Amino acid sequence: MKERTEEPWTIKKERTGELGVRILRIDLNCDMGEGFGAYRLGRDEELLDFVSSANIACGFHAGDPSTMRSTVQLCLRKGVAIGAHPGLPDLQGFGRREIAITPTEAYELTLYQLGALQAFVHAEGGRLQHVKPHGALYHMAAKRHDLAAAIAAATANVSAELALFGPPGSELLRAGAAAGLRTASEAFADRSYQRDGTLTPRDQPGAVLSSAADAAAQVVRLVREGKVLSREGEDLSMRADTICIHGDGAHAVEFARDIRALLNSSGIAVMALGH
Amino acid sequence: MKERTEEPWTIKKERTGELGVRILRIDLNCDMGEGFGAYRLGRDEELLDFVSSANIACGFHAGDPSTMRSTVQLCLRKGVAIGAHPGLPDLQGFGRREIAITPTEAYELTLYQLGALQAFVHAEGGRLQHVKPHGALYHMAAKRHDLAAAIAAATANVSAELALFGPPGSELLRAGAAAGLRTASEAFADRSYQRDGTLTPRDQPGAVLSSAADAAAQVVRLVREGKVLSREGEDLSMRADTICIHGDGAHAVEFARDIRALLNSSGIAVMALGH
Amino acid sequence: MKERTEEPWTIKKERTGELGVRILRIDLNCDMGEGFGAYRLGRDEELLDFVSSANIACGFHAGDPSTMRSTVQLCLRKGVAIGAHPGLPDLQGFGRREIAITPTEAYELTLYQLGALQAFVHAEGGRLQHVKPHGALYHMAAKRHDLAAAIAAATANVSAELALFGPPGSELLRAGAAAGLRTASEAFADRSYQRDGTLTPRDQPGAVLSSAADAAAQVVRLVREGKVLSREGEDLSMRADTICIHGDGAHAVEFARDIRALLNSSGIAVMALGH
Amino acid sequence: MKERTEEPWTIKKERTGELGVRILRIDLNCDMGEGFGAYRLGRDEELLDFVSSANIACGFHAGDPSTMRSTVQLCLRKGVAIGAHPGLPDLQGFGRREIAITPTEAYELTLYQLGALQAFVHAEGGRLQHVKPHGALYHMAAKRHDLAAAIAAATANVSAELALFGPPGSELLRAGAAAGLRTASEAFADRSYQRDGTLTPRDQPGAVLSSAADAAAQVVRLVREGKVLSREGEDLSMRADTICIHGDGAHAVEFARDIRALLNSSGIAVMALGH
Repeated sequence: MKERTEEPWTIKKERTGELGVRILRIDLNCDMGEGFGAYRLGRDEELLDFVSSANIACGFHAGDPSTMRSTVQLCLRKGVAIGAHPGLPDLQGFGRREIAITPTEAYELTLYQLGALQAFVHAEGGRLQHVKPHGALYHMAAKRHDLAAAIAAATANVSAELALFGPPGSELLRAGAAAGLRTASEAFADRSYQRDGTLTPRDQPGAVLSSAADAAAQVVRLVREGKVLSREGEDLSMRADTICIHGDGAHAVEFARDIRALLNSSGIAVMALGH
Repeated sequence: MKERTEEPWTIKKERTGELGVRILRIDLNCDMGEGFGAYRLGRDEELLDFVSSANIACGFHAGDPSTMRSTVQLCLRKGVAIGAHPGLPDLQGFGRREIAITPTEAYELTLYQLGALQAFVHAEGGRLQHVKPHGALYHMAAKRHDLAAAIAAATANVSAELALFGPPGSELLRAGAAAGLRTASEAFADRSYQRDGTLTPRDQPGAVLSSAADAAAQVVRLVREGKVLSREGEDLSMRADTICIHGDGAHAVEFARDIRALLNSSGIAVMALGH
Repeated sequence: MKERTEEPWTIKKERTGELGVRILRIDLNCDMGEGFGAYRLGRDEELLDFVSSANIACGFHAGDPSTMRSTVQLCLRKGVAIGAHPGLPDLQGFGRREIAITPTEAYELTLYQLGALQAFVHAEGGRLQHVKPHGALYHMAAKRHDLAAAIAAATANVSAELALFGPPGSELLRAGAAAGLRTASEAFADRSYQRDGTLTPRDQPGAVLSSAADAAAQVVRLVREGKVLSREGEDLSMRADTICIHGDGAHAVEFARDIRALLNSSGIAVMALGH
Repeated sequence: MKERTEEPWTIKKERTGELGVRILRIDLNCDMGEGFGAYRLGRDEELLDFVSSANIACGFHAGDPSTMRSTVQLCLRKGVAIGAHPGLPDLQGFGRREIAITPTEAYELTLYQLGALQAFVHAEGGRLQHVKPHGALYHMAAKRHDLAAAIAAATANVSAELALFGPPGSELLRAGAAAGLRTASEAFADRSYQRDGTLTPRDQPGAVLSSAADAAAQVVRLVREGKVLSREGEDLSMRADTICIHGDGAHAVEFARDIRALLNSSGIAVMALGH
């Protein structure tokens, strides 16, 4: 976890409205378009009613040209901001298995996927908002500077207007800032955190919050106080510009609905990153 | 074969130079970047000394992000105009086997590939000049209006500035024009033509011109007179805005060199499509 | 439709039991293991309670090594006979798009997939019973002798004990017989037939029987009388050694259960091809 | 490096001929069939004149059904023993990039590939002799017991008659022996070894022997004395049942020819593993 003062490039979470009232806001993001050919995954259409940003798979770990196009159309129709979700070239492993790629390969496969998705976004009259690497690529780039710099460079070479998503204090955010990009620090709604600010590994007890109410409460506290209760029972400072909602669990839609509802009733606006 | 008068959208082949002298010009194009991973195909670097336009594979029938990037860099270094060479999703068949795709699928796979290549071109500071479908996609779209229209739409949705390549009088050219795109009528340097203006199928005798001198002479006559001697011995009117040089034969480099040399000594400028 | 007398190689549908009672029997088959990586398709486990033969995808149009292995295990546990379901190399199109492959390529891709599946079957202590090509490969080989012969040769080269499935009167059955293989004439439970014995195309009204009772009745009549009522309202003679139950519809499990129940109550044994 | 006495399962390198003369023998192996579709790699046909065993790619890191079939036919025609060369599912990376697969996945992808190749070998009337994992899979399994055991199990489940290749003293050899398989300790002709018996990494000076004479001498000494001079200048005991000749360098054929010639003139028989 980095101190906030070290991250001058992060995005302001609070805004002063017209009458000088401070507005609390947060972005809710969800992975989308992760089907392939005849295969469907996730309840994209329903989830799009609750999130403000979508991370669309680009054909390497999931997604194909048809799925990408229809998902882009769906996002535009629902007014949800569109991001690219590039992954490792591993459809069978759904991009979750680490592959020992070089930074150059990371740059190239990210650039390829961003370009492919952007073509669909532009063809439909939209605009690409952000980039969030998927699965193993996300986790590798969170820790390794060279891979993070490669992904940030690919992102910046597509457009200097793009935002790069990454875990709080990660190499991804650092590399994005160094590349002159906007960055968004991402927390997870339904995952618990360890004392050092990293996610509790999935094979450990308590890694996943099974109650929608708990997840919603964690999100609200993150937005209001910038704090999360760690698995060890200590309060942890954590910046969250965007909250990831999982779209592939059995209760994904219910979680999204409950989180959105609590945010609404707590006076927190759910909005894409904006400008 | 369509009458010239029916194609108001084709590109002017002759220009008046500064002193009012008419300059004969032609574009020479060649498929490039058709390796994949550890595999190499063609002598791209040498061929780039002789052609004015390159058709770069985009990852479906050949090409991968690394190959695409290095081929784009090579083209920019050599001053060769860059085109996209989208193909069917069939690496094993090298995009040469027809696949019964729908027009919608044709639109989507073309758009995906154009976007991916364009990202590399823009990242290197270049500009995409044209689109030439590959192999079975080219042949299917030459004959079928619906597929041609899909490819033209994908091209136009990437940029209205792009040119679309296709055989003389083909549905591809017609669809490109209908989509408001520039088009370039393409002839082949080393292939013989039949009376009806179509290529002699490869399994027929005389389909391929085995002499570089014959190929070069065919090209020069196409440019000078707009005519080609058909396999049946009759003269055929044919518009050629660009001439395809094959890059994958044993003597590809020699052919390219000889054709270029004869064009030079004939006072014909080899130039990309230009503006 | 071929006359029965022309098919000396087909499989006897009636058997004389121990006490000299003639037993009516039929094989029910279903496509299985058609997931890929993180993707699931079909309710394999439930369907296996109702069918006697499973056609397992082999990795080209669907299926991956993990899915193949677990599906083989499931079939063995449930006592369902195992068949290979080789398809065209087109995961995105789910093997449903025709690809212009040569007979040699058909032979090679079938042999490859049969070998791969057989390894899993043998490793689990089972035995491969049959081969049923998938999707476009099935339809192409039903009509084209050269492709059918290629698939039959690949099948025979894996084992002379294998049975080959195909539509009644198809080139597939003829080629299987010519290769010395057992063959099984396959009818579809929930599809209507045209006067010429071919399936009503899916884009025509009445192509699919939407009622489980109708489908079950069609199956029972096929087994009892060797007849089916064509879409045009005429009776059609049709040999059916095996009946395909679709596994991917919304009501697939209900259809399978109802068909099985009616067969049971009609005194028709549901059994794999046997020996 | 393990002591010889610890490896009762290794293969006898010396035989007593009919007249009681001890015959020195060695197996020379080479990777083969590593093209894909239109791509060719290596000079398989020429190399097959010099080696006694071929490791044939099985479609994951390289190879396709057509290439596999023609390579199997070539080996049978030349009398070269056939082995499977399964790799990671990474055509773009040619199977050289580590992928974080589980042991179960290693088992499954190995079994799949072995089965596929075996179908071609059996169809052509041949017999599979051995299994040698490729690239990153080989290196990972050499060091990790769990992956090695998975590969050995897949091999044993295809046939208890198969031999498993691996580096001297590796987990692969240990797992092969534990699974009741024959094993063959593999040394490299043109690579230098470090004091600990491992290969000098390719990014270090002197990793590759650039002289065919040096490589041939290293091979002869390995066979005669069971020793190799390490990069640090010390003699190293090393068992070699088979020697790998690289097939993809510019001088691969010359190296193979020179090594074979020196073995012949040194009275060392080049023979497959035999029985």
